[in-house]
Amino acid sequence: MSEAVLTIPGGHGGALSVRRGETFSLTDVAGQQAADFVAFNFGDLGETLSTAETRLALKSLYIKVGDVLMSSRGRPMLEIVSDTIGIHDYAVPACDPSRYAVDFGCPGHRNCLENMYEPLRAYGVTSPLAVPEPFNFFQNSPVVEDGRTGVVDPPSRAGDRLVLMALMDVVCAVSSCPQDIIPGNGLVPTPVEIRYKAEAV
Amino acid sequence: MSEAVLTIPGGHGGALSVRRGETFSLTDVAGQQAADFVAFNFGDLGETLSTAETRLALKSLYIKVGDVLMSSRGRPMLEIVSDTIGIHDYAVPACDPSRYAVDFGCPGHRNCLENMYEPLRAYGVTSPLAVPEPFNFFQNSPVVEDGRTGVVDPPSRAGDRLVLMALMDVVCAVSSCPQDIIPGNGLVPTPVEIRYKAEAV
Repeated sequence: MSEAVLTIPGGHGGALSVRRGETFSLTDVAGQQAADFVAFNFGDLGETLSTAETRLALKSLYIKVGDVLMSSRGRPMLEIVSDTIGIHDYAVPACDPSRYAVDFGCPGHRNCLENMYEPLRAYGVTSPLAVPEPFNFFQNSPVVEDGRTGVVDPPSRAGDRLVLMALMDVVCAVSSCPQDIIPGNGLVPTPVEIRYKAEAV
Repeated sequence: MSEAVLTIPGGHGGALSVRRGETFSLTDVAGQQAADFVAFNFGDLGETLSTAETRLALKSLYIKVGDVLMSSRGRPMLEIVSDTIGIHDYAVPACDPSRYAVDFGCPGHRNCLENMYEPLRAYGVTSPLAVPEPFNFFQNSPVVEDGRTGVVDPPSRAGDRLVLMALMDVVCAVSSCPQDIIPGNGLVPTPVEIRYKAEAV
């Protein structure tokens, strides 16, 4: 097996499968780019990566190296192996068609939900409603003491990189967030590069 | 129309429908009782109350009087009309079968997910997977400045009460959290009383 590189263009999405025990990386190629991320149990798409279960398990709104991200059934799904930036969000949703149509008056704008759903269809995901709440890697949602939060531009710089290990066979999807109307990606969506183990065929 | 009272026994669940513009209340009858809560658009069960959309809209991990809770499509679903306690969680999941089986070695323990799903079946909800992440009213999940969080016993006292207004026709489900192994409900599940407008029949 050799390394595969999936370069997701700015504002677009992609999907991949990763076997248990394998690692894969997400790199913010140009900096200041949020990468929305979801995962499913490869063998049972009804079990998904769960932000709420992970908050329960970690007792933290933030994630760091060594943390285990949990499935909707409370089972370990992914582990954070390394991280050059340490600023990620798992509190707010993926941008979706209604976000752009209702909040910004831009129907038809590219969005993270469809960016993730479309490539997931090839893996058997049959509805955007089956796509769980995302981890928004490199997204910057600071929380202050009284619980107020927000989304601002990320501090990530070109080449910042997160490495995850799959703790079960998973299907993952990644979106380079297409938000270019308000801060979140420095107003310019840029590529996200995924490196993973290519399967022998 | 007259007032209906749905008294949910400690550790059990119930469901009700509420029309747009109507209010309903949840009362922590004996104090220190978390009430997990979910809602669906009555006319389209694919649209649910969404914790993540609400965090995005409110920019806060906490909810207060006047706040509008949002649907999975980013639309206003419920409004908080009054609240005698002000301590609620919407960060962590409902307890579910795997929580008790895996984390506590108690398979078959009553749990909030099934407490809500079972009465929702009469309204057309066909899978526990369709039950969204809950609002956990009266649940106490303090967040400190560096983002660490937790679940401890609620400060709510007998009679503490939350009133919500439906901003669309909704189906709601409520669970008196059956957690009696670790803190969260003072170790003794107690009733939650729902008061709402009875439909003329």
